Amino acid sequence: MRGNHFGKMFSFMSFGESHGPAMGVVIDGLPAGLTIDLHQLQNELDKRRPGRVAGTTSRNEEDRAVVLSGIFEGKSLGSPIAVTIQNTNQKSSDYDQLKTEVRAGHADQTTLDKFGVRDHRGGGRASGRETVARVIAGYFAGLIIPQIKVKAFSSHLGSFIFNGIPENVHVDFGDYHFPDTTKTEAIKKYLEELKSNGESIGGAVTVVIDNCPVGLGEPAFDKLKADLAKALMSIGAVVGFSFGSGMDFLSLKGSEVSADKRHFGGMEGGISNGERIVLTVYFKPTSTVGEKAKAGRHDPCIIPRAIPVVEAMTKVVLADHFLRQRAYGDGLK
Amino acid sequence: MRGNHFGKMFSFMSFGESHGPAMGVVIDGLPAGLTIDLHQLQNELDKRRPGRVAGTTSRNEEDRAVVLSGIFEGKSLGSPIAVTIQNTNQKSSDYDQLKTEVRAGHADQTTLDKFGVRDHRGGGRASGRETVARVIAGYFAGLIIPQIKVKAFSSHLGSFIFNGIPENVHVDFGDYHFPDTTKTEAIKKYLEELKSNGESIGGAVTVVIDNCPVGLGEPAFDKLKADLAKALMSIGAVVGFSFGSGMDFLSLKGSEVSADKRHFGGMEGGISNGERIVLTVYFKPTSTVGEKAKAGRHDPCIIPRAIPVVEAMTKVVLADHFLRQRAYGDGLK
Amino acid sequence: MRGNHFGKMFSFMSFGESHGPAMGVVIDGLPAGLTIDLHQLQNELDKRRPGRVAGTTSRNEEDRAVVLSGIFEGKSLGSPIAVTIQNTNQKSSDYDQLKTEVRAGHADQTTLDKFGVRDHRGGGRASGRETVARVIAGYFAGLIIPQIKVKAFSSHLGSFIFNGIPENVHVDFGDYHFPDTTKTEAIKKYLEELKSNGESIGGAVTVVIDNCPVGLGEPAFDKLKADLAKALMSIGAVVGFSFGSGMDFLSLKGSEVSADKRHFGGMEGGISNGERIVLTVYFKPTSTVGEKAKAGRHDPCIIPRAIPVVEAMTKVVLADHFLRQRAYGDGLK
Amino acid sequence: MRGNHFGKMFSFMSFGESHGPAMGVVIDGLPAGLTIDLHQLQNELDKRRPGRVAGTTSRNEEDRAVVLSGIFEGKSLGSPIAVTIQNTNQKSSDYDQLKTEVRAGHADQTTLDKFGVRDHRGGGRASGRETVARVIAGYFAGLIIPQIKVKAFSSHLGSFIFNGIPENVHVDFGDYHFPDTTKTEAIKKYLEELKSNGESIGGAVTVVIDNCPVGLGEPAFDKLKADLAKALMSIGAVVGFSFGSGMDFLSLKGSEVSADKRHFGGMEGGISNGERIVLTVYFKPTSTVGEKAKAGRHDPCIIPRAIPVVEAMTKVVLADHFLRQRAYGDGLK
Repeated sequence: MRGNHFGKMFSFMSFGESHGPAMGVVIDGLPAGLTIDLHQLQNELDKRRPGRVAGTTSRNEEDRAVVLSGIFEGKSLGSPIAVTIQNTNQKSSDYDQLKTEVRAGHADQTTLDKFGVRDHRGGGRASGRETVARVIAGYFAGLIIPQIKVKAFSSHLGSFIFNGIPENVHVDFGDYHFPDTTKTEAIKKYLEELKSNGESIGGAVTVVIDNCPVGLGEPAFDKLKADLAKALMSIGAVVGFSFGSGMDFLSLKGSEVSADKRHFGGMEGGISNGERIVLTVYFKPTSTVGEKAKAGRHDPCIIPRAIPVVEAMTKVVLADHFLRQRAYGDGLK
Repeated sequence: MRGNHFGKMFSFMSFGESHGPAMGVVIDGLPAGLTIDLHQLQNELDKRRPGRVAGTTSRNEEDRAVVLSGIFEGKSLGSPIAVTIQNTNQKSSDYDQLKTEVRAGHADQTTLDKFGVRDHRGGGRASGRETVARVIAGYFAGLIIPQIKVKAFSSHLGSFIFNGIPENVHVDFGDYHFPDTTKTEAIKKYLEELKSNGESIGGAVTVVIDNCPVGLGEPAFDKLKADLAKALMSIGAVVGFSFGSGMDFLSLKGSEVSADKRHFGGMEGGISNGERIVLTVYFKPTSTVGEKAKAGRHDPCIIPRAIPVVEAMTKVVLADHFLRQRAYGDGLK
Repeated sequence: MRGNHFGKMFSFMSFGESHGPAMGVVIDGLPAGLTIDLHQLQNELDKRRPGRVAGTTSRNEEDRAVVLSGIFEGKSLGSPIAVTIQNTNQKSSDYDQLKTEVRAGHADQTTLDKFGVRDHRGGGRASGRETVARVIAGYFAGLIIPQIKVKAFSSHLGSFIFNGIPENVHVDFGDYHFPDTTKTEAIKKYLEELKSNGESIGGAVTVVIDNCPVGLGEPAFDKLKADLAKALMSIGAVVGFSFGSGMDFLSLKGSEVSADKRHFGGMEGGISNGERIVLTVYFKPTSTVGEKAKAGRHDPCIIPRAIPVVEAMTKVVLADHFLRQRAYGDGLK
Repeated sequence: MRGNHFGKMFSFMSFGESHGPAMGVVIDGLPAGLTIDLHQLQNELDKRRPGRVAGTTSRNEEDRAVVLSGIFEGKSLGSPIAVTIQNTNQKSSDYDQLKTEVRAGHADQTTLDKFGVRDHRGGGRASGRETVARVIAGYFAGLIIPQIKVKAFSSHLGSFIFNGIPENVHVDFGDYHFPDTTKTEAIKKYLEELKSNGESIGGAVTVVIDNCPVGLGEPAFDKLKADLAKALMSIGAVVGFSFGSGMDFLSLKGSEVSADKRHFGGMEGGISNGERIVLTVYFKPTSTVGEKAKAGRHDPCIIPRAIPVVEAMTKVVLADHFLRQRAYGDGLK
């Protein structure tokens, strides 16, 4: 009820403040007997680590996942899987100056107002660092639905815009996840320049889901589109969500929409229809700007690092609905 | 787990197929001792009834709310409040032709695929008629947070666009909920023309929330923005959600955003900051077009009827988070 | 969160005050495509109706179940099934004298203390009449697990005690559900005498569950024994619960217990082991005694009427755990 | 949904297998700003540690609680509190012989049947070691309800029986928690003798709750008695639960019960009535007997070590219901 628990059949609880001893997650609902590849898990985590790509934060955190439970001889036991990641930046002396600082667009003031106390050394629960829990959960969720392919890419990075969906989407588009890889160098330069100016930008991420079985999502409130929206809107800098033709629906006539099922983005009546699911997630510019943004460990655009988180939360929702539908055993074949 | 239950502290379960005996809702979590005004409840229901405004469906349903429990001598008892509304269109002979018909953009096919059976006489659970349950729940949610003012208006109706927020927003803007009321006649004509052409359009609704206390929303997954997104994305024709500067964030620089807190739309770190909350909800054009749309009871634009539903779902989320925060009794004063 | 919702995958919400317009239930989580026999449902309800057997209340309520949703052409749709039962005893004039009356052992005073208001005309939510919702839910739960046989019988009715389990247990033992049917007349006389003396007694009910698949129940908190305990302890007059050898464990040595698996009552580590499950539920004497108990509609022993409720709640738990286990699809074959 | 999560407003997720890297718990729902005393937490844990009292297991585990999150400068942050305890007995070579061994009355076979796999080195999730998570949760729950006094004592230890409730109950009764402390030496001898014979016994624990506010518990399914039953029945060796006069109700007449409110054990209609709450929890003899029980680390009676767990689970339920009731803010003053 304090919002740290996500999902129903496949669920997880996230914990940890950015400057406390550790971040972590407990996953409940992974079926037993699945083969776990901890190297693959570590790979997923490495993708969201800061300091990996130019123009992103130069912090060199070692996000080493330590599994405390739920796995035995390489297989899931069906019991909770707890994973922790140590924080290495807890030297409290550095942080005294932050005690009274409140950053606009961050949770600093609202956390203080809500709880009456706050770990002023960093973003606490609102830190981007919390998303390690999501990436870990996403890895395990993926084991439930290996047939479903989830791919997120940058469709809008400041002035770089990619329209539509590349033909070959389930491939690596490089550090910025931008499908037109001829632009990679230009994006790098653009982000470096933004950083040197203490500036930041927002953008959009497109998510493509292929091979999703028909019948995921529940009719009234737990429509697949609604649960995906919640999952993705719960990510820090996300300010909007749409699916299918999204904003284009505003300028389309009903006759045009009805003529091409692809407008519906793979969901009709909130239930997957077996076709490709397409989502768009919108990000605001990161809030840290000016001298501070130049100095150190701040991203001029959060999107490259957010993409593994977007993919993870998408998988979590799909795995949860997959188990829910299997429980009832009706229609779905 | 079949998606018919919404909310945690303030929650409700919705039931009913559009062509079954009745629609209804059971509300759980209304504090005891609140004064209930059943006329006010009926007023809210009447707002979403079809056939009320030109250009909307001419079906003349009488949505008469019948309270079965939870209220005694005009006060809430703290026990579940069950409300039913009879359906009057159950004559099954009319519907035989629909048995094999499947409408694009509706849940017809996905429902059949998911469940293996379907009440072919209408939209079943996916019918817009299901939203009576939400409007009823919204009325009761409003009793928990009488100080919070929630207003939704049409900001985009096909070619009619209203930018920004009117100074005096908590007033009645007429049948189409469009703040520039000098356009009411033109909108009427526009919708009638669409209908006579068997055409439909989408649009956008802006939601303004005033007097929301600081501190609603939970840090990680149950951020206020995430729970509002889920609530509003669970409405039938909704295809997108954003808050604050929404899509404009794509073209704003971080320095611009930081300069004016209003961009954040009343939520920082997913928690209400005490300022005005602003949301936008995007709708696709209604899926029924062509000869069928001309004939009868179909809206060329769903937005005028959806507005009470949008307001209701917003109130439900706010009331739920209000109770949650009160339970913990920390920060919030 | 106000305790009117029970279950997870198979769940239901109960509503209604004993003297309000109606009682009812909404069931969420029945798979689609199951054949519904409304006569069978009515039969189940009739079993718990007062006034049916001598020595039980002479109220002649007609508990006529009306289905409002979720069933079409005799099959479940996979959507919520709402069922209501009208109350026929709402004449408020009769009840003015009860306004200030508070009955020991009832919820009268605690309801008033908790909620600040109360429907003084009857037991409200705490009335035995609330159990119609449970019996209805139990009928539908049974459709999910037709292979599992659940039988409850009176093992202790005041001075009538039946030790052990009859060889042929899944049969009708008559009005008092006492396996030694040669005692039926004597029990009748005994209860009539108690009633004419304004006296009441408690007792015990034994529940036998046969053909339960191995593997139901979850290791830590949702052990099958724990969920069954919660379900049965939530029934009004129930004061205790045990399983397997129950109270006899107090005088058994570990070596004796280990020698015969039947002591464990079909559950080891809180998980069904495929053998017969045996539970015992303990009831206090009904609280209404003296002149009032003689006068009218009060049972000298609640057990005969409670037995269908005990069976229903048992089925609800089993159906819920059956769906939960099927979702994960591990071990269970 | 795999049963590792307990509670609603105050909730926790438990993880860890007895022979995996660590046990742990994540607590969600502790209000912010509470003062945390980690020494007190460690004291609570030490009470349930094996090897502390004669006649209990001689394993010398060091259950050192490590807090990973949720506490800053000695205060709760309102965010999840993760606590881990390393396991020190993971040397897998010792355990090969156990691979095919299945102990009666344990979860060994049912775990294998349910999940298809099992950590054969120990009890896994079903091990008594899992209860460290509960004791930790109980400590934090107690911070929410400091005014409520919860005391559990041994009322039945094999042939030692204590009837009634000692006048001065909220004191330390020594290693066996038996109120007649003149019997401590005799109990010690009795247990040692049982152990040397490879024998075990069961018994009963009585729980006394003082200063519980009126109004905790919800009318229908979440009655306080039902939630307490679930919490306590979820403990490994517990086979029964009762409250108030419990089993004595079987031989009491209604007139006797009505004459003395104490029979109701502090709850009427499932809601606390402000008086002393009295519960009884029944334990079976521990399942390990014979040569194995003599050898090493097995208790001849689990009760002395279970008492801190019983107290913890009781506090968890009370804290949860306390927050729930505060959320609604009705009746309760």
